[in-house]
Amino acid sequence: MSSIEPDEFDAFLAFAHRLADVSGTTVLEYFRKKYSIEDKSDGNGYDPVTVADRDVEQVIRAEVANTWPEHAVAGEEFGGDVTDAEFCWIVDPIDGTRPFIAGMPTWGTLIGLTHNGAPLLGLMNQPFTGERFWSGTDAAFYRGRDGKHAITTRSCRTLGDAILTTPSPDLFATPQDKSRFDDLSTQVRMRWFGGDCYAYCLLAAGHIDLIVESGLAAHDIAPLIPIIERAGGCVTGWDGGDAAGGGHAVACGDPELRERVLEVLSG
Amino acid sequence: MSSIEPDEFDAFLAFAHRLADVSGTTVLEYFRKKYSIEDKSDGNGYDPVTVADRDVEQVIRAEVANTWPEHAVAGEEFGGDVTDAEFCWIVDPIDGTRPFIAGMPTWGTLIGLTHNGAPLLGLMNQPFTGERFWSGTDAAFYRGRDGKHAITTRSCRTLGDAILTTPSPDLFATPQDKSRFDDLSTQVRMRWFGGDCYAYCLLAAGHIDLIVESGLAAHDIAPLIPIIERAGGCVTGWDGGDAAGGGHAVACGDPELRERVLEVLSG
Repeated sequence: MSSIEPDEFDAFLAFAHRLADVSGTTVLEYFRKKYSIEDKSDGNGYDPVTVADRDVEQVIRAEVANTWPEHAVAGEEFGGDVTDAEFCWIVDPIDGTRPFIAGMPTWGTLIGLTHNGAPLLGLMNQPFTGERFWSGTDAAFYRGRDGKHAITTRSCRTLGDAILTTPSPDLFATPQDKSRFDDLSTQVRMRWFGGDCYAYCLLAAGHIDLIVESGLAAHDIAPLIPIIERAGGCVTGWDGGDAAGGGHAVACGDPELRERVLEVLSG
Repeated sequence: MSSIEPDEFDAFLAFAHRLADVSGTTVLEYFRKKYSIEDKSDGNGYDPVTVADRDVEQVIRAEVANTWPEHAVAGEEFGGDVTDAEFCWIVDPIDGTRPFIAGMPTWGTLIGLTHNGAPLLGLMNQPFTGERFWSGTDAAFYRGRDGKHAITTRSCRTLGDAILTTPSPDLFATPQDKSRFDDLSTQVRMRWFGGDCYAYCLLAAGHIDLIVESGLAAHDIAPLIPIIERAGGCVTGWDGGDAAGGGHAVACGDPELRERVLEVLSG
């Protein structure tokens, strides 16, 4: 963040909160109501998209165009390239469309800002539970119905103590990815499914130790990286490289766990 | 419910809400805080119980003993037999201890009342999200932050339209049970994991169509049956028999689906 002034960061963060406020109002007009659902999967599995996803992304795009017309936007539903502009807003209007459709409160709206392609700030909004997680310049924060406080990941020095999650065992990109996840699962205290972005934020807040996924897009993970890193955790690819572009990702609340986890995931 | 007067039912229901109020305060003192966790599994898997489970059940037991000393109580943590008494309160202090431990809001406190062994009323309380689901004498209700309203299951005439859930693919009692669940999964629109009692209530409210589980205890399912049935759905064993005692259960929002589902689950 070397070339960003604190005042500039604060203005972007305030704007991210504004995007969360307006998009939260829109998404709650759909949650648990009747709305149209399409399948994006070309018949291979089920990859739902709803009119809610599209409306929420349009609301966010309109706000950005109005306030920061020189900024780019990359969103799940209407595309865009993260690296096109000095500043790019990365948006997943409903991260967790499957739990959204099922009425579960474990989805969220992801809003990130990259600066020259690197994650600058991230925010996750869950308007049904009234919760929001975001990154400051060097810390991460939570706001819920009981107020606002800083969050940090927790210490977890051995795999045998770890709680591991992934959204669904059905979402790994290949059978080999699933098999490596299963190998890792045999070494942890507990694995649990569900959560999408909500689980990554619970990791940032010290309730989950490990999250492993494959088949991600940039909008699924880039907005979460600043939250997790500034809470004390780390996010990389399964090969230890940068995860901001999507693909394979592993998030560790305690960076001490990373080396052991990467050993298992690299097969 | 033939031998229960409406006034008597109303008194029991008001008391169930009181149990939810007091237990909700207790459980929120633990959720996402530090507390001790033990493993009940004898080394075969991981079956966590927390001091929160035990404290919540004790709070409920004390209230029942104080108000209805002649009533029995059967709870997950401190035992008791459902059929011992004319009236028996069935309590699962935290249904979904695994998501509770992971910080997810998809657990709940289950409170049921049986009359001569048959489910009379049921209530599920999720104090973190501020949601409550319960059965009246011939309807089911939801109360959330946006107020109270009656709930009904939704129509779903074909398996291909159905959303199917179960808490976790790791919790089936046998590999055969898991295999039958997988067979059913291939025929539905979408399957998703997570939810525990929370998912059954989403089925009662018309957001999920099918839930399939095995290895249940009475306290996991008996309090949910009146909510689902009075919302228009049905709950049976995989053989079509009574599910109130636990074991294998299948819940259908649309009873028209049941026959087809039981065919698949019976192998």
